[in-house]
Amino acid sequence: MGNRNIKMIIAYDGSRYAGWQRLKEEGSKRSIQAVMEEAISLSLKEEIKITGSGRTDKGVHALGQAVNFFCACQTGIEDIKEELQKLLPDDIAVLEIEEVSADFHSRKSAISKTYEYRFETSEVPSVFLRKQVYSIQKELDIKEMERAAGWLLGTHDFRGFSSEKREEYNTIRRIDRLTVFETVTTRHQREIKELRLLITGSGFLYNMVRIIAGTLLEVGEHKRAAEDIKKILTDKKREAAGMTLPPEGLYLKEVVYKSSI
Amino acid sequence: MGNRNIKMIIAYDGSRYAGWQRLKEEGSKRSIQAVMEEAISLSLKEEIKITGSGRTDKGVHALGQAVNFFCACQTGIEDIKEELQKLLPDDIAVLEIEEVSADFHSRKSAISKTYEYRFETSEVPSVFLRKQVYSIQKELDIKEMERAAGWLLGTHDFRGFSSEKREEYNTIRRIDRLTVFETVTTRHQREIKELRLLITGSGFLYNMVRIIAGTLLEVGEHKRAAEDIKKILTDKKREAAGMTLPPEGLYLKEVVYKSSI
Repeated sequence: MGNRNIKMIIAYDGSRYAGWQRLKEEGSKRSIQAVMEEAISLSLKEEIKITGSGRTDKGVHALGQAVNFFCACQTGIEDIKEELQKLLPDDIAVLEIEEVSADFHSRKSAISKTYEYRFETSEVPSVFLRKQVYSIQKELDIKEMERAAGWLLGTHDFRGFSSEKREEYNTIRRIDRLTVFETVTTRHQREIKELRLLITGSGFLYNMVRIIAGTLLEVGEHKRAAEDIKKILTDKKREAAGMTLPPEGLYLKEVVYKSSI
Repeated sequence: MGNRNIKMIIAYDGSRYAGWQRLKEEGSKRSIQAVMEEAISLSLKEEIKITGSGRTDKGVHALGQAVNFFCACQTGIEDIKEELQKLLPDDIAVLEIEEVSADFHSRKSAISKTYEYRFETSEVPSVFLRKQVYSIQKELDIKEMERAAGWLLGTHDFRGFSSEKREEYNTIRRIDRLTVFETVTTRHQREIKELRLLITGSGFLYNMVRIIAGTLLEVGEHKRAAEDIKKILTDKKREAAGMTLPPEGLYLKEVVYKSSI
């Protein structure tokens, strides 16, 4: 392991992958981490271990995952990016690259993360977005969803909104922003209607964004009351919250670091 | 076969399919025609044969393929659409449905077709569009491409611009429009640059749009002169034209019929 610390912002279409984290035994779907480590090691001709800002689950996408790795190489930073882009499969892209100080750690130095969950609400779902949105084919009550979202803001114990398979002991997190908005775009000559959740926080427990999205979906469908959120936060029971929505609607959008790093 | 004639406009993501046309022996990839015939037959409980406006090759997409079929059923037209949408896989969608007169034939009655070929020119290709555009990672000389396109307009023998595997004897076709334009859109928080070819004509020979796109690409790269087009039309030799571009950039956009039908 060298002492140059390289930070990269990467994007990936998670559809083909087992998720970010390298698996002890890789199955038919590979991890993005393993694919990247192989490409970087091959490119720089030294064994590279890469650290991500956090895991993304099987099938989850990233528009701005932050990663870093140490290398001994002397290769220019833009050459590393260019070479790597040639070696990576076309569903993983390096968007930005920079050399950072030795104390930068893509997970530990992160101060906040933003995820987006995308519902397609068009009556006939787009055939081209089926692995990029969760299609529900109906409109939701956005006002009620916004009201429910309000209860989630701030610092809470989010145990009820996380999978029991989580590895974290501390289930306290802080949500700084949770916005619900609709978009209408034209793609492939058709009008695509979406409802999107944008959520920024200090960090997220295992499946937390997908469970929050599933709970807010039920609120938007009038299958539960907005006030349920308060009870889930108090009771801290997974079964009280909504279902874990499928991964194809979820995007890791941005990881924010202290500007001093 | 009944005497009700049903016309539908369908869209599909061609990535998973062997193309429109039913194959004698279906391989690992199925044909869209076979998948649709099964779904309609199952839905209407009678054996249905479906006719498309024309073939689309393996991997080619459709935004507005026109098809028709005859049935004996008495099911309401909107009910057919709704039921069918439930049975079809999520990469095939029924956009419109209507009952038409018995003499309507989706191939023979067509008076023109429009195809689009999409090049992504962004330096770092979008990870989400890789099966929906042909990524070339460079800008092209659009003026020269437009000049070359001019020679293709009108009625010509397009033998030189078609695969020798074509089944058609008559290789005369008419091109009514061939426009080249750039688009810049924001998707997944990134700027996506594209160059698109829009081509409308009386009909197209086997691989004709992809060979025209491949020839215009070489003109845009300054690998051949715009005037080459004239020579390819005169000499009628396939090897004189450019390469057949990959199917993922190609879309059947629209099929036009006489309004009287």
